Amino acid sequence: MISTTGYAAKHSYSRLKPITIEREEPKADEVLIDVLYCGVCHSDIHQVKNEWSNTVYPCMPGHEVVGRVARAPESGKFKVGDIVGVGCMIDSCRSCEPCRDGLEQYCEGPNSWLATYNGPMIPSKKAKTGTNMYGRDNTFGGYSSNLVVHEDFVLKIPDGLSPEAAAPILCAGVTTFSPLRHWQVKAGDRVGVVGLGGLGHMAVKLARALGAEVTVFTTSSEKEEDARKLGASHVAIEKEVQAKQEELAALAGSFDFIISTVPEKHDINAFIALLKREKSLVIVGALEPMAPVDNQAVAFHRRNVSGSLIGSIKETQEVLDFCAQHGIAPEIEIIPIQQINDAMKKVESGEVHFRYVIDMASLENSDDEGSEKTNV
Amino acid sequence: MISTTGYAAKHSYSRLKPITIEREEPKADEVLIDVLYCGVCHSDIHQVKNEWSNTVYPCMPGHEVVGRVARAPESGKFKVGDIVGVGCMIDSCRSCEPCRDGLEQYCEGPNSWLATYNGPMIPSKKAKTGTNMYGRDNTFGGYSSNLVVHEDFVLKIPDGLSPEAAAPILCAGVTTFSPLRHWQVKAGDRVGVVGLGGLGHMAVKLARALGAEVTVFTTSSEKEEDARKLGASHVAIEKEVQAKQEELAALAGSFDFIISTVPEKHDINAFIALLKREKSLVIVGALEPMAPVDNQAVAFHRRNVSGSLIGSIKETQEVLDFCAQHGIAPEIEIIPIQQINDAMKKVESGEVHFRYVIDMASLENSDDEGSEKTNV
Repeated sequence: MISTTGYAAKHSYSRLKPITIEREEPKADEVLIDVLYCGVCHSDIHQVKNEWSNTVYPCMPGHEVVGRVARAPESGKFKVGDIVGVGCMIDSCRSCEPCRDGLEQYCEGPNSWLATYNGPMIPSKKAKTGTNMYGRDNTFGGYSSNLVVHEDFVLKIPDGLSPEAAAPILCAGVTTFSPLRHWQVKAGDRVGVVGLGGLGHMAVKLARALGAEVTVFTTSSEKEEDARKLGASHVAIEKEVQAKQEELAALAGSFDFIISTVPEKHDINAFIALLKREKSLVIVGALEPMAPVDNQAVAFHRRNVSGSLIGSIKETQEVLDFCAQHGIAPEIEIIPIQQINDAMKKVESGEVHFRYVIDMASLENSDDEGSEKTNV
Repeated sequence: MISTTGYAAKHSYSRLKPITIEREEPKADEVLIDVLYCGVCHSDIHQVKNEWSNTVYPCMPGHEVVGRVARAPESGKFKVGDIVGVGCMIDSCRSCEPCRDGLEQYCEGPNSWLATYNGPMIPSKKAKTGTNMYGRDNTFGGYSSNLVVHEDFVLKIPDGLSPEAAAPILCAGVTTFSPLRHWQVKAGDRVGVVGLGGLGHMAVKLARALGAEVTVFTTSSEKEEDARKLGASHVAIEKEVQAKQEELAALAGSFDFIISTVPEKHDINAFIALLKREKSLVIVGALEPMAPVDNQAVAFHRRNVSGSLIGSIKETQEVLDFCAQHGIAPEIEIIPIQQINDAMKKVESGEVHFRYVIDMASLENSDDEGSEKTNV
């Protein structure tokens, strides 16, 4: 077994603290990765707090992982020393239609894909016993010193990207890139991005790089300048826009695609009205019941409300390469792991600009007591 | 002016009673039609009761109209004596992109398409004054002795269809046919139909004729036999299905297309879970805010929730011809106009099997007093 240190929550109400776990030795085709950086995703907070009612404790989050290969199969895809990434998934059933189609994020195996932490993602009796269909214990994520992952679920970080900036691309990047591609956003399209956090700011950068004209809808007037710097042509402060019927009417029916990155229940009706006929609003941020949708606005222009979940391994490699090629990188703030509890609060309050990335070298500085006393 | 008798409501709380109105003489390219039959659509009730908050009174419903041409332009599309139909629309802007694309039901003109009754459909200041952008007074529908309609919005009733059975195809038929076509339902597809009323029963017949295997979801266990007679391979009684997790799990992810014809706010979450990856649930019955939709079920399989509104003039002609060709006709019960108030109650309570069609010849039997005293 491999001894692994990391930060985890023991209950839904507890702060993340250092713990030591054991990971199984890499099997054939598996890679041992020393973690260098890990992004802090809003999902980590949902999961730690058991807001999706499926958390298995202790819960060690982290699915925007960049590290260095420490051990690799001979004649495998990676060699020792490679800088690699691990996103939201570390395995899937590999035999269902979506898996065969290279869409592992829609795996229809008995327990769907295996999440990098708190896997299996889908609640099941097996999950409660701590072992899942993949023959592993409940998974522990990248807020840790190392990971063991099948090489098919490991991404190559291209030379043009710094390891720390690459981390958020592995979830925030691909979660917005996948729907932009699937719904075929192209040069000249008018794209709306609702919410300007970790996902939203990547959606702006990626849509711009695809040649779209981007409008950001945000509740925070102080984000207007940020939005423009990121590439938005227009910024609409939600409350103001919704209060001003004239402004809304001017925008009605003018968008080719709208992506909502708001990570909680929200009202999308005002945005549906902005879509052109037969176009789609895609929700990627929220996984809960939404505010009631007025079907009149949907039906009168044969519009669509859709959802999209992260992205496939192939798409993750694509977005990494796309970012390197277009000189796109997430806006990040590097923190030591000892600041994680404070950072999570700032993610919830929207104070983060735009993604915290944990420098995992800081793990060496912490111990069970010290983290409590000095850092948060 | 042409004197027209018909039934209308004077207030949201009043019963339909006979009134006399005046219609303008047909202009060039307009056809005068003596109404023979008119279907009773659930929308008629919504509109009469002002449930969409846009009714102009007096409100004379009726948009499933079959009649005989009484006057027609020389060298026009129709000649005197032709049996013709009029559906939900009698005009549109004709210049916007959807109109140019032959999708008048999605007209983006200032007041959208002109509804056969209570037009313009979209509330506007103009509507409140009783005149609209088309230079007409608020429109009066087919619960009447005659209609005047531009020939471009008049349908040919094919020889293979009886006039009375053709009437419900003009709304219930095309409203279900249009999405079946748009979402490309084909032989072998598994199709779910939610609700088995006027629209639902046509959805079953049309989907079967397209070669699909149809499952009906209904809240009324007494409709099971009807559903099978109409062509459903499977019938699921909603409450029972939703109570039985096992049955639901067996159906999960197995449908290529689901059409919800329920004419009021309802919960579609259980049905979303039945869709295959990337497939669509389309709401055609309800035009109001729906119960909250759980985005998890949408996102996890990149599913879509969409809406669809009636159908184009071209599609209406297609569904009429399709029905004639496939020997499909709505299940109707013919009533005299004097029974309209009672019939509307039975539509609301779901007692109708499946569409009332008014025999407009009965108009001659009624007068202002008589209808109150003797018929309802």
